[in-house]
Amino acid sequence: MPKEVNIGILGLGVVGTGVAKILLEQKKLLTERTGVEFRLKTVVDLDWERDRGISLDGIRTTTDFEELVQDPEIEVVVETMGGIEPAFSFVMSALAAGKHVVTANKALIALKGRELLEKARECGVQFLFEASVGGGIPIIKSLREGLIANKILRIYGIINGTSNYILTKMHQEGLDFSEALQEAQAKGFAEADPTLDVGGGDAAHKLTILASLAAGGFVDFGSIPVEGITELTSLDINFAKNFGYVIKLLAICRFNGTKLDLRVHPTLVPGDHLLAAVNHELNAIFVTGNYVGDTMFYGPGAGQSPTASAVVSDLVDLARAILQPEGGYTLQMINPEKNVALFSLDEIANRYYLRFFTLDQPGILAKISGVFGKYGISISSVVQLETHGEKNYVPIVLLTHEAPEKAMFKALDEIKKFDFVRPDLLRLRLFK
Amino acid sequence: MPKEVNIGILGLGVVGTGVAKILLEQKKLLTERTGVEFRLKTVVDLDWERDRGISLDGIRTTTDFEELVQDPEIEVVVETMGGIEPAFSFVMSALAAGKHVVTANKALIALKGRELLEKARECGVQFLFEASVGGGIPIIKSLREGLIANKILRIYGIINGTSNYILTKMHQEGLDFSEALQEAQAKGFAEADPTLDVGGGDAAHKLTILASLAAGGFVDFGSIPVEGITELTSLDINFAKNFGYVIKLLAICRFNGTKLDLRVHPTLVPGDHLLAAVNHELNAIFVTGNYVGDTMFYGPGAGQSPTASAVVSDLVDLARAILQPEGGYTLQMINPEKNVALFSLDEIANRYYLRFFTLDQPGILAKISGVFGKYGISISSVVQLETHGEKNYVPIVLLTHEAPEKAMFKALDEIKKFDFVRPDLLRLRLFK
Repeated sequence: MPKEVNIGILGLGVVGTGVAKILLEQKKLLTERTGVEFRLKTVVDLDWERDRGISLDGIRTTTDFEELVQDPEIEVVVETMGGIEPAFSFVMSALAAGKHVVTANKALIALKGRELLEKARECGVQFLFEASVGGGIPIIKSLREGLIANKILRIYGIINGTSNYILTKMHQEGLDFSEALQEAQAKGFAEADPTLDVGGGDAAHKLTILASLAAGGFVDFGSIPVEGITELTSLDINFAKNFGYVIKLLAICRFNGTKLDLRVHPTLVPGDHLLAAVNHELNAIFVTGNYVGDTMFYGPGAGQSPTASAVVSDLVDLARAILQPEGGYTLQMINPEKNVALFSLDEIANRYYLRFFTLDQPGILAKISGVFGKYGISISSVVQLETHGEKNYVPIVLLTHEAPEKAMFKALDEIKKFDFVRPDLLRLRLFK
Repeated sequence: MPKEVNIGILGLGVVGTGVAKILLEQKKLLTERTGVEFRLKTVVDLDWERDRGISLDGIRTTTDFEELVQDPEIEVVVETMGGIEPAFSFVMSALAAGKHVVTANKALIALKGRELLEKARECGVQFLFEASVGGGIPIIKSLREGLIANKILRIYGIINGTSNYILTKMHQEGLDFSEALQEAQAKGFAEADPTLDVGGGDAAHKLTILASLAAGGFVDFGSIPVEGITELTSLDINFAKNFGYVIKLLAICRFNGTKLDLRVHPTLVPGDHLLAAVNHELNAIFVTGNYVGDTMFYGPGAGQSPTASAVVSDLVDLARAILQPEGGYTLQMINPEKNVALFSLDEIANRYYLRFFTLDQPGILAKISGVFGKYGISISSVVQLETHGEKNYVPIVLLTHEAPEKAMFKALDEIKKFDFVRPDLLRLRLFK
């Protein structure tokens, strides 16, 4: 008889339902592959009216979270309710009650990961979160185990499917941001309020998790500079294309000595880089290790079945820990007591894409490039298009060589004061 | 004090040296991350003259394999000598002596995996081989653990770096096969005798391993149809490009019901597929699971450090097993007792790329297409180029709709008999 592991699911939304489905549909396969019988015992949710398309016959359904915590048979709680509260309090109680916890809740880990991990340690239980980044892509296991021999030098992630879908549509079909957003919403790839996705916040949550794994200690979510894709126009996509680049919203983690350079922003990626070929709602995490070199992990970053696939892989890892009560362990790469220092933007340098709309007057390019010269910023390409007809403003686009962020901010402040420059200038960074 | 795990390396070639380097250089990091101290105790090799660029002070060096087997302190043997014999006998003895074994030897697993895994089971030890496919890419762990909830439906692997390097050069620089091969040899990406690489045998070894993991039982290496890239010309690369395809040597595993369709052959991959962007000596494994959907794992498929990175990840997995003597286990997805049925080529259907050189006479296309019509094979595109000057033969290229392999072989046998067709016709398959 295989050992039985009793599982409780907290939150029967899209992901929770997906996990229940796999546990019910693949009971036999999972037992064959692991030697453990996963039994879905209890599901907690407030709404029992909605039809989720699965039969929960023989499974305890309740609105009372305490039933999970107080049931000594339940060894693992799967948190798929989302949000910070009450999810945080519930997970803390579950850990305190000696339950292992698996979650797909990236915001929760990004904001409360340290406390949760400390509590899990204190209570001698596991806290796993494979599904929190990259959906079904086993990126966390790969960082934690597959690449364990490596110092992780660089991570570049396309880890927000909504933004990548919008950028792909803008790039391939010439749509403007708002048109592409509407299409993403119509297809279910963007929420009614897309702020967290297109503003870069969701990618920053996930970057916090990836960077913490790479650094071995929690990084502070609030210190990550974040820029979204809402200011991009189809004009910028086209200019970038003509320069040989594709614009992607990248979550970036670069080690330099003992400090980390973390950011989320739209980035001009060279057209022949593999990341440039990651399209639609798909995700990819490009990881460079000191021994392994460049690797990339690609797949669906969201969706019921892919995310549930990742949650179940955590359950299988937990089964190993449960089978081995004396010292059974999964590798936890993050030490909650370790602090990780971050670079501020002021300390780093980048190449830039700059797009201005200026009045069509003589001498303007000279004035703009004069300011860059003053701050030691060297220009590598310029495109100024002719005006046709009634337009008063013409676009000027520049690519620069590498320059300190500090100098760039000062130069742009000065350029903004020219009365021939429209206020909607755009500054993007190039991949490095 | 962390528990010490004593390791013996068998074969101090490129990979063995890489493993020794990581164990020596990253001792502290590995102990921090795993709670185990990896101690390289003994290295066995016949050649102690050659300089490997590492210091083995304090490590026992010997030419006698028996020293590993008879040393009760050594818990893990890393087999990095390569080849079938004496590697097979040595690994069997190590397993019999109760040592866990980690190997990067894909030929050994492809040909002797069943016996080795049975022996490991019988002796209650682990036999791990992450480095055997995809070098540093954690593909085996991903199949075994990360995607454990999934039935694996499809695998498409670019898993021979030499072939991919040659095809990339042919594609990007218009080189012919022999020129590209010479360049690969000059750069160290191809051996003096490249048969195993460019003939597809190496990819077939690795496909045997991937397919066995996916199927949960060993597949028979000898039953896999294998075609290499030696017949490709720059003309074919260009025709494919103009049709919108890139030619890649793919290792293919497709589940259909309970049987497996396994093959290694050059394949026309659509230009916008992510696999088409995997260039140079890099590897990628595209995996479709029933829950996760499409994923891809990309990275260096060979080389000292990447391969050693994978070997060390196996050592870390083993450390878990060693720390947990009562029931500690890593997931072994392959059941050596399970037989997996394969389709024969006769049973499957494909789309084809066909290139003929024919005399420049009237009515030839009608005769060729007449034969295809007779066998129910439908043509989707034809290109026939004009001759200029003294050439007697002109190329005709056809793409077909999906047709049974059986019908295609019969049709081609008939076409070969036309006296206006040169014997060097080429038949490739399209990605499906």
